[in-house]
Amino acid sequence: MVSFECDYIAGAHPEILKKLAETNMEPMPGYGFDRFTASAKEKIKAACKMPDAEVEFLVGGTQTNMIVISTMLKDWEGVIAADSGHVSVHESGAIEYTGHKVIELPSVEGKLTAESVKNYLRTFYSDATYEHMVIPGMVYISYPTEPGTLYSKAELKALADVCHEYDIPLFLDGARLGYGLMSDASDLTLPEIAEIVDVFYIGGTKVGALCGEAVVFTKNNKPEHFMTSQKKRGGLLAKGRLLGIQFDTLFTDELYFKISRHAIDMALKVKEVIKEKGWRVYMDSPTNQQLIIMDEEEMESLGKSVLFDRWGVYDNEHTIVRLATSWSTSEEDIEALAKA
Amino acid sequence: MVSFECDYIAGAHPEILKKLAETNMEPMPGYGFDRFTASAKEKIKAACKMPDAEVEFLVGGTQTNMIVISTMLKDWEGVIAADSGHVSVHESGAIEYTGHKVIELPSVEGKLTAESVKNYLRTFYSDATYEHMVIPGMVYISYPTEPGTLYSKAELKALADVCHEYDIPLFLDGARLGYGLMSDASDLTLPEIAEIVDVFYIGGTKVGALCGEAVVFTKNNKPEHFMTSQKKRGGLLAKGRLLGIQFDTLFTDELYFKISRHAIDMALKVKEVIKEKGWRVYMDSPTNQQLIIMDEEEMESLGKSVLFDRWGVYDNEHTIVRLATSWSTSEEDIEALAKA
Amino acid sequence: MVSFECDYIAGAHPEILKKLAETNMEPMPGYGFDRFTASAKEKIKAACKMPDAEVEFLVGGTQTNMIVISTMLKDWEGVIAADSGHVSVHESGAIEYTGHKVIELPSVEGKLTAESVKNYLRTFYSDATYEHMVIPGMVYISYPTEPGTLYSKAELKALADVCHEYDIPLFLDGARLGYGLMSDASDLTLPEIAEIVDVFYIGGTKVGALCGEAVVFTKNNKPEHFMTSQKKRGGLLAKGRLLGIQFDTLFTDELYFKISRHAIDMALKVKEVIKEKGWRVYMDSPTNQQLIIMDEEEMESLGKSVLFDRWGVYDNEHTIVRLATSWSTSEEDIEALAKA
Amino acid sequence: MVSFECDYIAGAHPEILKKLAETNMEPMPGYGFDRFTASAKEKIKAACKMPDAEVEFLVGGTQTNMIVISTMLKDWEGVIAADSGHVSVHESGAIEYTGHKVIELPSVEGKLTAESVKNYLRTFYSDATYEHMVIPGMVYISYPTEPGTLYSKAELKALADVCHEYDIPLFLDGARLGYGLMSDASDLTLPEIAEIVDVFYIGGTKVGALCGEAVVFTKNNKPEHFMTSQKKRGGLLAKGRLLGIQFDTLFTDELYFKISRHAIDMALKVKEVIKEKGWRVYMDSPTNQQLIIMDEEEMESLGKSVLFDRWGVYDNEHTIVRLATSWSTSEEDIEALAKA
Repeated sequence: MVSFECDYIAGAHPEILKKLAETNMEPMPGYGFDRFTASAKEKIKAACKMPDAEVEFLVGGTQTNMIVISTMLKDWEGVIAADSGHVSVHESGAIEYTGHKVIELPSVEGKLTAESVKNYLRTFYSDATYEHMVIPGMVYISYPTEPGTLYSKAELKALADVCHEYDIPLFLDGARLGYGLMSDASDLTLPEIAEIVDVFYIGGTKVGALCGEAVVFTKNNKPEHFMTSQKKRGGLLAKGRLLGIQFDTLFTDELYFKISRHAIDMALKVKEVIKEKGWRVYMDSPTNQQLIIMDEEEMESLGKSVLFDRWGVYDNEHTIVRLATSWSTSEEDIEALAKA
Repeated sequence: MVSFECDYIAGAHPEILKKLAETNMEPMPGYGFDRFTASAKEKIKAACKMPDAEVEFLVGGTQTNMIVISTMLKDWEGVIAADSGHVSVHESGAIEYTGHKVIELPSVEGKLTAESVKNYLRTFYSDATYEHMVIPGMVYISYPTEPGTLYSKAELKALADVCHEYDIPLFLDGARLGYGLMSDASDLTLPEIAEIVDVFYIGGTKVGALCGEAVVFTKNNKPEHFMTSQKKRGGLLAKGRLLGIQFDTLFTDELYFKISRHAIDMALKVKEVIKEKGWRVYMDSPTNQQLIIMDEEEMESLGKSVLFDRWGVYDNEHTIVRLATSWSTSEEDIEALAKA
Repeated sequence: MVSFECDYIAGAHPEILKKLAETNMEPMPGYGFDRFTASAKEKIKAACKMPDAEVEFLVGGTQTNMIVISTMLKDWEGVIAADSGHVSVHESGAIEYTGHKVIELPSVEGKLTAESVKNYLRTFYSDATYEHMVIPGMVYISYPTEPGTLYSKAELKALADVCHEYDIPLFLDGARLGYGLMSDASDLTLPEIAEIVDVFYIGGTKVGALCGEAVVFTKNNKPEHFMTSQKKRGGLLAKGRLLGIQFDTLFTDELYFKISRHAIDMALKVKEVIKEKGWRVYMDSPTNQQLIIMDEEEMESLGKSVLFDRWGVYDNEHTIVRLATSWSTSEEDIEALAKA
Repeated sequence: MVSFECDYIAGAHPEILKKLAETNMEPMPGYGFDRFTASAKEKIKAACKMPDAEVEFLVGGTQTNMIVISTMLKDWEGVIAADSGHVSVHESGAIEYTGHKVIELPSVEGKLTAESVKNYLRTFYSDATYEHMVIPGMVYISYPTEPGTLYSKAELKALADVCHEYDIPLFLDGARLGYGLMSDASDLTLPEIAEIVDVFYIGGTKVGALCGEAVVFTKNNKPEHFMTSQKKRGGLLAKGRLLGIQFDTLFTDELYFKISRHAIDMALKVKEVIKEKGWRVYMDSPTNQQLIIMDEEEMESLGKSVLFDRWGVYDNEHTIVRLATSWSTSEEDIEALAKA
């Protein structure tokens, strides 16, 4: 059985495990005050070419979205997101649990357009009753998006311009950031993202770590007493070293980018297999996730030797199947898929 | 200046003020343990022909939606509503403040269809990842809807059937219930609504009271310790008599229905004025609210002698204007409108 | 049967009912944009001798505490209160419902002392782990306190000094403010309270109104978008006129102070009855509430002709009984009590 | 420099790292559906001699307290805890963030007594106004307690009896459970704890794991849709294997108990050092944490070669210093402490 189920089927990149083992018995203070957390922050700031950025580590994606959004929004605000966004659909209502509405706008291939956001905001403020509504206080996007598409630099800048016109931050969920940046279709670099958006995170869980996401506040806008707010939401890890060591390793010798590129290389091979098999593509993706449409029979047949994800419902008879590659996908996995 | 701004421009029906004055110095216990609250509950149960119903009084509409929804939903659940629903748009995120998502479905003339709800629920449960999503735990509708339309008996039953198939309650927001029931277009009675839905409220604020909404739990489903949950949300009125006396009066000699019918009679006259003036209708409404489309110039002209509500944005150059009648609208008001 | 059960057993002061009736059919905009609300705000600012104060009206006491505290606290903060405070004991956890801890300090006759608050704050900040704790962001007191005692001017100033040393606001719950100010034991005036504290409210529900509390922000510190936050918590009244007219009447010709003084006069007579009867006093109160200790037998006997409140448990055999006077207490009531 | 700062200064027990490395490239499903999570659950149930127990894994202690308490409490309920309890003091208000009050009772050496809980509950229900208060819905204790003391079997049973008399669950926070069970002063076994309490957790973070806590529901009382509620609070780990493998290793060949006993052995040696040095003991602890009282001079001197925790403020001139041992403390560490 070979697995393309998701991009977190394996443990951690071997370099990470090695580093965890090497440093294991060294006593370190808790809660992120260890030397590896400090080093990882410096390396991430350097990779972003942004020495004044503020970096914080959290354990998982939903937790990160919940904590970033709820500490940056004001009481009366909500967050605009695509109706296909992770915070809109797949977080069991974690944003709402913090008391804030996700204002869902229609997505185009998983993306928000600057036009639709601008139109929403303009219409909102032209409504005399807007104080009886949820006031938009942030725009959330993901890069790559949930179906694996990418914003171009121009699209990202246009969104940021709208946000800044209305004085609200643009937040980029980078749970799979490496797989976006390393895609041939990307015209964005990490420093460019850091410069354009107001806050974003570099996903570790899906890109080589056991767990962990690195939040980057790019405009001297880290919420006050962030650590206390983190703890209040159950999101402060006692052994902060676990996150520090992992990100320190991922940002040494460009490991994060190399393993992300590997996943893209493997994805290109999956694309070839899909073409050969004649499978129907749901949405063409330049990143590490391929979405195809299958009926029950096809899924049953494929499922005999390949693990995959039932990503969504297509229609009464068809399912959207996702094949994901990652840093851990091997050539042998691709061969097995081709044979399936 | 004559006002058609909303259905709560006047104080209370004179009968209510009279009763408040008559009983003013009588000492009564607080928190709804007074004799008028008890009497009002009995009268409402009688009007619903449902002796086992449980009735509770709250102060306002948003508060009522927030308290009913958040005490009936389970931790992991959200509420389905039309994207035009009051809880979706005009409550500043009060439902989300309680930690629950409003799952918005497209509305058709302000209404949810049984088909779209059923389709949503069927698709939801066919998604293998649904435990990572907000589980639908209630359906919210309003009657009349926000733009003034009405569900037919068949539509209401169809919605209830879907809800009960999935074992979730159907909640009807009746902030303007009287204006719906008394419309010529309605084929529903109060006892029928009580029988079909699982919980609903009879609006007082917009139908003759200074404030107050009467929640009716129709299936022995009043949440446990409801009073404590009410207080926890700041929704328990110390002088419960204020609500008890008002509803006792409204449900004496069918006052609630008579004054609601008066508003409909006045609305029919407004319709005639609209036709005479040749104004463009946004959505045809059989209830007490008429929505028309006007440009800035028309609004300015009308605004010289008539107060109205800018209900929403139609397009860049047009606004949806609402003219609302109520129990307090007089023949003189209609004449003044006709002259405007 | 005569009632000393609480200070909200009657309806509203007759002047209020009269004014409600006089203005009943006048169309007014909702949500506090009516002329009476504007006028009431001006009169309250004048009574406070503070033209720059910001005044907002809310419906009830718990709602007011909940909204003021949760909109003024920052995410990571909690509110310090006496362990006997209303927010600590009798609001069903409304403050915690908004996500904030009530940090309870021991009370002395219902009061917080500046010393204990200062000591708490000093110890708190000397604790190296304080970022793992709830950071104190406000001090809550009530005037009169729950058992009816009063802060002196010196005590109030000392509390404010501690708060300002630590840069946190002092909030005074004045649900029974009139009964405190008009007590012979008070050395404070309304303008003095407004000058010393950062935010407070003038209770209407217990001092002559059907409902309503007037919040006064004294230091240009009204939270941004307060109306939206109010609505989000279900605390925005559609017919704001109900609150505006009541407070406008209460602050016309010093009615608020006159009826408060009447309650104090009646309380002094209750004190005499208590002395004559030889009842055991729980805590000597200079305001409108008298607390006495009774066993079951005594309560049963008194209960034959007088309604009173079982205020708390004294010991296994004794209950603390409260006799409250108010603006509505009459000489006849006192006579009936004396005869009981 | 030698560190006795806390019981989480090192990484993970080497057996855990070894197992993580061995299984690293094995594809496994996420969210706890992997084979190690299943195996760990079985081993924990066996160690508890409770085949019907339900086991769930979470990442950290505060997160666990927050999720267990908020999913088990009903809307109107709060949790009783000692005023020295972790949920009362050191979680930045995480319980209140979920909308529930921590009802703090005075602690005796870090413990709640059955008498004080019973007395609180009896008094609570004899108060006629209890529906205006937070209704107690759970009792929270920690074992060992925050200062390192232990409940005896009799004390634990007495607490459980009170809880069950009032039909509320007893929840035991076992962040340091191993260090309690392996103490010479303990008369409790893991199966006995499982039998007596209603829900508890076995701490991993402080007892050999990188992170992780194992919650055990002992009375078929796991909240419905627990996984969805977990996710909603940001507490569902994508790579559940990280928790599964760690607990599977800790509960293989009694590793959890052996390394816990090692920490106790080391603590006994620390006690000897304390006695030799003549340091003043704050509270005598039979577990892995020793609390001593030091002035600034003493701390400065000790701090030259030893890292320790400033556990709390003793008085204006003295601090409570904590020396913690753990599975990672070595004989060399003790020798270095003795020399300090």
